[in-house]
Amino acid sequence: MYPESLKNLVDSLQMFSGIGEKTAERMAFSILNFEEEQIQTLKQSIEDIQKNIHSCPICNSLTDQEICPVCHDPNRDSTTLCVVEDPKNVFLFEKLGTYNGKYHVLSGLISPLDDINPEDIKLEKLIERITKDNAKEVILAFKPSVEGEITALYIKKVLEGLNVIVSRLASGVPMGADMEYIDNLTLERALEERRKIS
Amino acid sequence: MYPESLKNLVDSLQMFSGIGEKTAERMAFSILNFEEEQIQTLKQSIEDIQKNIHSCPICNSLTDQEICPVCHDPNRDSTTLCVVEDPKNVFLFEKLGTYNGKYHVLSGLISPLDDINPEDIKLEKLIERITKDNAKEVILAFKPSVEGEITALYIKKVLEGLNVIVSRLASGVPMGADMEYIDNLTLERALEERRKIS
Repeated sequence: MYPESLKNLVDSLQMFSGIGEKTAERMAFSILNFEEEQIQTLKQSIEDIQKNIHSCPICNSLTDQEICPVCHDPNRDSTTLCVVEDPKNVFLFEKLGTYNGKYHVLSGLISPLDDINPEDIKLEKLIERITKDNAKEVILAFKPSVEGEITALYIKKVLEGLNVIVSRLASGVPMGADMEYIDNLTLERALEERRKIS
Repeated sequence: MYPESLKNLVDSLQMFSGIGEKTAERMAFSILNFEEEQIQTLKQSIEDIQKNIHSCPICNSLTDQEICPVCHDPNRDSTTLCVVEDPKNVFLFEKLGTYNGKYHVLSGLISPLDDINPEDIKLEKLIERITKDNAKEVILAFKPSVEGEITALYIKKVLEGLNVIVSRLASGVPMGADMEYIDNLTLERALEERRKIS
């Protein structure tokens, strides 16, 4: 149907996570209206990201420097570690601008169904950091899912001997939500973990 | 917040029509997991589309050949012309596989609010084709909007002396729609343009 180059671009764009056929088609058609300069900018930024971005050797977050800005910052509290499942989530917390601890990025979550076992998510590096930095608290900030729960329980167990507080994100009613649209599990959690108004 | 190359890619991706910040972020992170080969394929397809795709000199549709396959096909009925506002829409009709006429792509729709006047949408080429091919019917397949209506009325008037039937797409209830979710204007049209069951 489409001319070959158009079809190829539509196919290529679908390699991106979250981009389906319709969106890829819309993108491919819109590229035809780009100025030559915009095309160059796009190609350059694809090249640059491949060349410049790598994992921080300390926390596994993404950076274009030798060590990421958070690990590098002496004013950040290195005795509090927020543990996330994906480098992307570091930026979600950084956007808040309220967290002053450091991060540790695991290689995903334990997921028996996908054959991802405890040894696959590189916990030894986390343990090493806790010991070396004398961490007081480890905040497990995983997504609320079976995998998140399994991983949290496993880490809690592994860290038992280490004299470190293991906490997790609060579960409950999201701000601004309509009560009637909140699912049962969330409502159950919100009730269980209710807080006394002081 | 983001490393510079990551931020640049997020910005570049937002040049695409329909891609907002969240989608651009998701895409930029997913490119970090691409194999080298996938990156090459992506860059190549961006280059190729710029190099190979151009407007068909007859109908203004997009093609990578001298003349587009529809214009080139002697089995297509050149006395019926489907007039669309955007090259993309040619492919929407071609996907159906049921239309056997030819196409003509205008340079957009007349839109007084956006200062797009009748002389901007290149109607003379359409008139030239109607005359040359002895067209019997011109189907105006514009989106249902004020601009679509204005353009259709204008073209109808311009073609008055040419002995050609000017038709437009049927308006009405879309297939599979829930009656309660159909807007009033659509319902009004569907009622006005009701068809006798024969």
